[in-house]
Amino acid sequence: MNTKTQNRRFVVIGGVTAGINAAKAVKRYDPDTEVVVLEKREFIAYDTSSLPYYIANVMEDHRQLIELTPERASQELHIDVWTRHEAMAIYPAENRVIVLDRETGEEKTLSYDALMIATGGVPIAPPIPGINLPNIFQIRTLADGINLKQYMVEHAPSKVTIIGGGYLGLEMAEACNALGMEVTILEKFGNIMGSMGSEITALIETDLREHQVHLLKDVSLKSFEDVDGKCGHVMTDGEQHRLETEIVIIAIGVRPEIALARGAGIEIGNTGAISINTSSQTSIENIYAGGDCTEVTHLVSGEKTYLPLATTAHKQGWVAGRNIVDPGCCVFKGAVGTSVTKVFDLEIARTGLSLMEAKRLGFEATTATISADSRVKTYPGNETITITLILDKKSKRLLGAEMGGREGVAKRIDVFATALYNQMTIREIAQLDLSYSPPYAPPWDPILIAANAGIKKLI
Amino acid sequence: MNTKTQNRRFVVIGGVTAGINAAKAVKRYDPDTEVVVLEKREFIAYDTSSLPYYIANVMEDHRQLIELTPERASQELHIDVWTRHEAMAIYPAENRVIVLDRETGEEKTLSYDALMIATGGVPIAPPIPGINLPNIFQIRTLADGINLKQYMVEHAPSKVTIIGGGYLGLEMAEACNALGMEVTILEKFGNIMGSMGSEITALIETDLREHQVHLLKDVSLKSFEDVDGKCGHVMTDGEQHRLETEIVIIAIGVRPEIALARGAGIEIGNTGAISINTSSQTSIENIYAGGDCTEVTHLVSGEKTYLPLATTAHKQGWVAGRNIVDPGCCVFKGAVGTSVTKVFDLEIARTGLSLMEAKRLGFEATTATISADSRVKTYPGNETITITLILDKKSKRLLGAEMGGREGVAKRIDVFATALYNQMTIREIAQLDLSYSPPYAPPWDPILIAANAGIKKLI
Repeated sequence: MNTKTQNRRFVVIGGVTAGINAAKAVKRYDPDTEVVVLEKREFIAYDTSSLPYYIANVMEDHRQLIELTPERASQELHIDVWTRHEAMAIYPAENRVIVLDRETGEEKTLSYDALMIATGGVPIAPPIPGINLPNIFQIRTLADGINLKQYMVEHAPSKVTIIGGGYLGLEMAEACNALGMEVTILEKFGNIMGSMGSEITALIETDLREHQVHLLKDVSLKSFEDVDGKCGHVMTDGEQHRLETEIVIIAIGVRPEIALARGAGIEIGNTGAISINTSSQTSIENIYAGGDCTEVTHLVSGEKTYLPLATTAHKQGWVAGRNIVDPGCCVFKGAVGTSVTKVFDLEIARTGLSLMEAKRLGFEATTATISADSRVKTYPGNETITITLILDKKSKRLLGAEMGGREGVAKRIDVFATALYNQMTIREIAQLDLSYSPPYAPPWDPILIAANAGIKKLI
Repeated sequence: MNTKTQNRRFVVIGGVTAGINAAKAVKRYDPDTEVVVLEKREFIAYDTSSLPYYIANVMEDHRQLIELTPERASQELHIDVWTRHEAMAIYPAENRVIVLDRETGEEKTLSYDALMIATGGVPIAPPIPGINLPNIFQIRTLADGINLKQYMVEHAPSKVTIIGGGYLGLEMAEACNALGMEVTILEKFGNIMGSMGSEITALIETDLREHQVHLLKDVSLKSFEDVDGKCGHVMTDGEQHRLETEIVIIAIGVRPEIALARGAGIEIGNTGAISINTSSQTSIENIYAGGDCTEVTHLVSGEKTYLPLATTAHKQGWVAGRNIVDPGCCVFKGAVGTSVTKVFDLEIARTGLSLMEAKRLGFEATTATISADSRVKTYPGNETITITLILDKKSKRLLGAEMGGREGVAKRIDVFATALYNQMTIREIAQLDLSYSPPYAPPWDPILIAANAGIKKLI
């Protein structure tokens, strides 16, 4: 295995999203290239974003989250998957990777013609006492999800504390609520959902209250109190300083896993993630990277940013694979930061920059907020959609959009995402010819109503 | 009334969509202008597109379709509405309109500073024997809807024949089916939904069959057979030449109502509709027009076209009103022909040019069709979305898109509409950062899958 075969060999480190996309693209466009995927854990090609729905039993079996098994990868796609194999070091000068077989402890050397680093992100753990207690969970990998679900089945906890009020924290709150638990969310800052504006987060907070989910904001974690070998209380600053709990879920974000890349001398960007070009190529010509270990160009600011989103990981992986076969064939220019989250009955979406981000980047930014009907007002099922636009006073361009409502949000945000890609001004957005029919939208779509409010704001 | 008041007077002919928008915009931006709306029928400011849902009892009361009554227009907006008043002639040189009071038969002369023609469209009636029988209906105005509903309540017809397989015909088929009738649709051409491609219309035809709706295509109407003073049979060419029926609904489209404008010497475009500029101004400076009596610039072809859509009527009316107050303040550049229709369980949408239209306009056009998941495949409620893209081989630009599916179609079409406005190439569309979350979309949104299929098709 440590000598080159006659065919080119493409080695992928990390088999979840970007890595699998790269492997599939190489095999699709050059079946003769040997493709080896190294995955340090058991599962590959699963959908991380479905984990909360797996926990909630909306998707009952963990196999529903798996798009491709190692067996099918081998049989159908001729991709060689080595699970429980961890890349320990990359030697770019020699085009070699050192691989640890985690079952046998054996170390192997694997040569490559092209390499892909798709090591993903690592969930951030607060460095406080008690963090390693056995009823404290993080949700990142499919194995994490299976462990958590098994623990819940075995221990039937009735009180859960969720650390972090971002989208994963809220999705886990919904999942735990659906399982009948009493849920408390602790958020470090004064606002949930990161830098999202209060017009939209207020909708979420109302929804949480309606579902009897406790939300504590501006909370500093002190420690996880050990009670009989488990976390029995979460200790915080502030009034409610000792929160009884039976299980803790930490969801405070991820950082890029860059140790291997750094060790190989690959350039790390200012964001702390691996720097890649639009072909997903790192600073070393035959080493590519993609997914949550890399940074991405934000197409609104033009700057590199760390935006760990599945959509970006898929595209970066696919573009890497295609460029390995046919250099220069295609690019991935960057993202605008579009995301959508289901929070109980609400669809919450955003794209582009928040007001806070826009100001930090030096834009003379302002916002316009409207609420409008999702359908013709008197058509059954009509709901209210709230939209906040973030606008640049100077160029009159849209910088970002945030939306919330009980229907019609998830895919409406994509119109703003498309507008951002095209650097549309607010006046141009008001011209858009959007679909209308009483069951689906009013004749003036909420997007147009928001755009017209934005025009007024900028006059 | 035939002398000018001190304030400017704005007279609007036609009070349904474009006319009311113009009236409201004038009052919003210049409350001192006197605004008189002439409406030859009883109702104003109602939503024509909701008529099928009113017939189907999804919206039970006709008042649910009315956005504004003459009384509220007067009291709240200070708009003077003259219902049952018909404009008979315009004298542009003298800035006067001759108005017939349809109740008293009295003729009045009304002077104006600015005039808006919003006479709408006239439903096309096939000029064949029996067309005036009393159980043959057209659905254009709210009065038409009320008449039809009353007839259905009184006569409880069990067999309906719908003439025309366009979106209104299909919506009426759904409505009549919901009311328990046996429905037959007669379509003159070999395809339903105008020039829409067969990949999408095939979905509709399957859906019609599942709902026991009979669809006869390539059918020439011969006559409506009089049986006891009613249409008892629809006579056609072809095999099933004598169709028993208890009621007939004609839905074969509209033509622009331009008699008044033509009489006033206003320029009529090649499309047969009133020619207006981006300020909704006709060839006579202080006469504006908008809605289904006017043509519109198609932003994909750049050519004037007749595209009677409510969305366009609203925008043209509003822009007319704003320009009457503040000339040059804003424009409506044109439409891309976006529409969506609910056909039983299906959402059917289109935007831009069909393949047939693109070829007629001289584009070297081709198509790419895909089917993809609306959500993550294993997430409950996932449905299949079918997308056909119409592409220009030369410029690699998107020219149009057609979509069908049980969910996620209505607002996804708007991404393509936004892409068309921005003249995006298919490669650019494949770059879009579209929202992803298992309940709403897969990580590769159907739009991206379609774009990637389009790229392949154009290589």
